[in-house]
Amino acid sequence: MTVYRIDLGYDGGGFRGYARNAGVRSVQEVIEGALAMMCGADVPTVVAGRTDAGVHARTQVISFEWDGPIDPARLTRSLDGMVGPEIVIRAVTAASSEFSARFSATGRTYKYFIDDSPSPDPLRRGWVWHVPEVLDVDAMNLAAAAFVGEHDFASLCRAAEGRSTIRLVGSAVWSREADLLVFTVAATSFCHQMVRSMVALCVDAGRGRVAAGTVPAIIAARDRNAARGVAPPHGLVLWDVEF
Amino acid sequence: MTVYRIDLGYDGGGFRGYARNAGVRSVQEVIEGALAMMCGADVPTVVAGRTDAGVHARTQVISFEWDGPIDPARLTRSLDGMVGPEIVIRAVTAASSEFSARFSATGRTYKYFIDDSPSPDPLRRGWVWHVPEVLDVDAMNLAAAAFVGEHDFASLCRAAEGRSTIRLVGSAVWSREADLLVFTVAATSFCHQMVRSMVALCVDAGRGRVAAGTVPAIIAARDRNAARGVAPPHGLVLWDVEF
Repeated sequence: MTVYRIDLGYDGGGFRGYARNAGVRSVQEVIEGALAMMCGADVPTVVAGRTDAGVHARTQVISFEWDGPIDPARLTRSLDGMVGPEIVIRAVTAASSEFSARFSATGRTYKYFIDDSPSPDPLRRGWVWHVPEVLDVDAMNLAAAAFVGEHDFASLCRAAEGRSTIRLVGSAVWSREADLLVFTVAATSFCHQMVRSMVALCVDAGRGRVAAGTVPAIIAARDRNAARGVAPPHGLVLWDVEF
Repeated sequence: MTVYRIDLGYDGGGFRGYARNAGVRSVQEVIEGALAMMCGADVPTVVAGRTDAGVHARTQVISFEWDGPIDPARLTRSLDGMVGPEIVIRAVTAASSEFSARFSATGRTYKYFIDDSPSPDPLRRGWVWHVPEVLDVDAMNLAAAAFVGEHDFASLCRAAEGRSTIRLVGSAVWSREADLLVFTVAATSFCHQMVRSMVALCVDAGRGRVAAGTVPAIIAARDRNAARGVAPPHGLVLWDVEF
């Protein structure tokens, strides 16, 4: 068996998330469907970052094992043609036999895009959350600083029975890039809805509805009710995966 | 009669152009339809820049006359709610009695966005032309320099019986902005398909298929067949209108 790696990106707007889920359109279903057509058999895949419904990926990585003949350059072109234009297949390459997109990934970086000007930009409405109220970036950075380090993020994650909510966040920073406000957060991995919960909390700090200094206590509470809901999915992009 | 000005923007991807045209969906039809609902009568409008099918506007301006009572702030919100999210109404304001979005406009600026990296970005596919070949920006700027000044642009315009193709171009520059290649061109006005013809010619110069030094002769030929077709509409954005 040879392990193959697929580098791809997608506009998540038209999908009910990355992961296959009966009865709904998922990125995984579209890609595995195309792979099955090319290979003539079902080809199970694993993924670096399971994005939620409506969340995008600039960079996503999946891997699969296959023992038949594959021309990676040709498979790249064929898959790309079958799954586009919402999904872009950048490259299919042969990887080492131990490679797993899921378990070999050592870090994930997400970005979240906000426009806090009075009117939204219709061309970017698919991946920018419009918040028509000028946000205080200093307060948002003060809030975000509390995320850095190893914490139990139970307050900021959708609970999953029996799964740890302890995560190691390497960096979490808000910056103004051109006319957008961008949150860049890197961690070894994230639990469910964690980035969108962080964004909602920071935006409330930026609006003055939450004092940034209370964020450590919100985290320490390990109680989902202590937080501030979740930001909408369409502003979130899986930006990079490290191996 | 009071003259009102509407500042708006739109994603042109779902419209067959700005101008009303029987049997197809146009930006003008959607806006005039909403205005007619609000005013209880047909309200003819004029526009600063008639964009083609699939072309976007970050900034567009229209004007209309009306003698009934209008609360501009309320009309802004109502119209915006009726025409969104592809069209964004930024402001409705009372203008001077001589104001015309078409005839008072003294300059129009367009931008054209190109991504010349190997793979397209699926999130920006609606407003960026993907050219999978690294382009020579210096050659493109050499080509673009020939557009500046007053010329008969018959080689670069779709012919319209009895209408002049002489235009005054103030500036025409290509620049790399983050990972995109951006053409910014300003003129008092443009004739039909002029910017997209300019872009096609510059891209062929950037690919080395046309020598940038031949552009003055292509313009001087005043012959549409001397040029290089048109770039696709979706990369083009009406960026600004001066009054």
